[in-house]
Amino acid sequence: TLAAPAIAQSMPEIRWRLTSGFPRSLDTIYGAADVMAKFVSEATDGKFQIQPFSAGEIVGTFQAVDAVGNGTVEMAHSSSYYYVGKDPTFAFASAAPFALNTRQQNAWMYYGGGLDLYNEFYKKFNIYMLPGGATGAQMGGWFRKEVKTVADLNGLKFRIAGLTGEILSKLGVVPQQIAGGDIYPSLERGTIDAAEWVGPYDDEKLGFQKVAPYYYYPGFWEGGAMVHFFFNRQKWEELPKNYKAIIQAAAGYANVDMVAKYDFKNPAALRRLVASGAQLRPFSQEILEAALKASSEVYADLSAKNPDFKKIYDSMASLRNDSYQWWQVAEYTFDNFMIRSRSKL
Amino acid sequence: TLAAPAIAQSMPEIRWRLTSGFPRSLDTIYGAADVMAKFVSEATDGKFQIQPFSAGEIVGTFQAVDAVGNGTVEMAHSSSYYYVGKDPTFAFASAAPFALNTRQQNAWMYYGGGLDLYNEFYKKFNIYMLPGGATGAQMGGWFRKEVKTVADLNGLKFRIAGLTGEILSKLGVVPQQIAGGDIYPSLERGTIDAAEWVGPYDDEKLGFQKVAPYYYYPGFWEGGAMVHFFFNRQKWEELPKNYKAIIQAAAGYANVDMVAKYDFKNPAALRRLVASGAQLRPFSQEILEAALKASSEVYADLSAKNPDFKKIYDSMASLRNDSYQWWQVAEYTFDNFMIRSRSKL
Repeated sequence: TLAAPAIAQSMPEIRWRLTSGFPRSLDTIYGAADVMAKFVSEATDGKFQIQPFSAGEIVGTFQAVDAVGNGTVEMAHSSSYYYVGKDPTFAFASAAPFALNTRQQNAWMYYGGGLDLYNEFYKKFNIYMLPGGATGAQMGGWFRKEVKTVADLNGLKFRIAGLTGEILSKLGVVPQQIAGGDIYPSLERGTIDAAEWVGPYDDEKLGFQKVAPYYYYPGFWEGGAMVHFFFNRQKWEELPKNYKAIIQAAAGYANVDMVAKYDFKNPAALRRLVASGAQLRPFSQEILEAALKASSEVYADLSAKNPDFKKIYDSMASLRNDSYQWWQVAEYTFDNFMIRSRSKL
Repeated sequence: TLAAPAIAQSMPEIRWRLTSGFPRSLDTIYGAADVMAKFVSEATDGKFQIQPFSAGEIVGTFQAVDAVGNGTVEMAHSSSYYYVGKDPTFAFASAAPFALNTRQQNAWMYYGGGLDLYNEFYKKFNIYMLPGGATGAQMGGWFRKEVKTVADLNGLKFRIAGLTGEILSKLGVVPQQIAGGDIYPSLERGTIDAAEWVGPYDDEKLGFQKVAPYYYYPGFWEGGAMVHFFFNRQKWEELPKNYKAIIQAAAGYANVDMVAKYDFKNPAALRRLVASGAQLRPFSQEILEAALKASSEVYADLSAKNPDFKKIYDSMASLRNDSYQWWQVAEYTFDNFMIRSRSKL
């Protein structure tokens, strides 16, 4: 069935630049852009080249969406919630307090209308989005002292961004915006009391356990944090159909691949962190319940003011509220038994 | 950056036939072959065409691997554990009692060495494999009467296949091999006492709740049942590099897409099943613990006799045993709180 090479109708030479929202040092999350670029190059015999740049090489993390929208670069790999300063609606494409877990997020994006709703919303910013990976449920961060009650959060200077910072501020937290490289010295000096980053594999590189040993979980604001490929709309639309198909397939691969890589790397990193002094602590029921209540209030306020937010929040919440009955039956009871049986495996 | 079309070096015209291990009526699982075929066709401007055939149209489910190995068809979409009759080693690529959940299975395949180990093993059968979807944790099946103790399993005629049937027979179960379409009348007449199929969305189509209302969970033998694309090795190896990249990316997309589709469709199906008479029942601790013990004994026996089985089992078990400490920290506690808070969402 192998015939002679034919003349292609639609294999133009294209070179795109991709600005990542992440530093190369976060190899797992940054790596999804390399995965995408490699598949696109190989699938087109090198005719379509995407060159990834680390955050800051062309523009910074928080400028990536603007740079894509105005055509400075053709695409980005970043996370929608970095842009909540433009509109809080950006949040749910990534993660938000008490939203979806990783698989529910995919179900919402691919089948529950999430992706279509976002691509309608993103037209305002002249961008088009495809899911491009996820971290899995994140950790709640590193704390210099234990926090047991909501009262313990009062005045707590916590390095945490965006919508979650706003929600936790209702519980007395004082959100701090600090770049990744400055977190360690700020914790060491006590300029801040706590900081959240990602999960064991990424956190380990920064050594927080030496200066803020209490490692809280779960990161209830990032139950399944998704990252995204963003495309300039005109650049996306002018791609030939075959190139669009290649990008869509490669983005799907990058999505499943990033989660697998985190799920492979996090367990060993957690063991090393605990061995070097990290002390695992669950957030108390009191704190979780107060945070849930504060989240619901903030979501209601924003829904009343912002029709885009309401439409997307309602869609997410509908899938979430429908999903957990099923989730608790098969997935959760399987995991529950396996966790309890660990010593017998 | 759009230049004139160039002459492709490697876009041969190819037509392949794909035999599915599934009937078209299982649209979610069967559909992954359509997803694959559509991406490959679009990505190659129609030059590479894969035509999926339903189980039985070319060969039956249990002949698919042979048909691929001997070149009757170029590829299949099926599940490795259907072929445990050839060698029990086939099991873990799909699922086996107390093995991995869906995300752990991806972590093992893509990063933990699972895929490489299997492709080495599959050389004996002249096939090459790529992950091609998963169902998520399955249900434990439909029972005419409640089963509470291991004694209740004694003599139970249970429609369940392969390695799991062998393991459960150690607890007194009498495994039955019955094709999908014959399950309902067998349950209705009492020829069998119980049957497992997949999960709510697929089970609903067969109406089991009318004749065997006790719907048990979890399906501890399919914590994350994966399905696969199998390729004739020569056909795979002679593909040009660009076509291989397109297939790999499309298989990754199909993998994440099938899980998302199940996760979207199962919750509503479960609600409808419960509304129409299904009675949810968790397997008792006694049954789960006895099944775990029986599984460990069977795995030890097979490992002693079969070096391929031992190598792959050890690799799977190593990842599994390392993973649950991390899984219980962030993922499980997030889901736990969300499940308990369902009424407040």
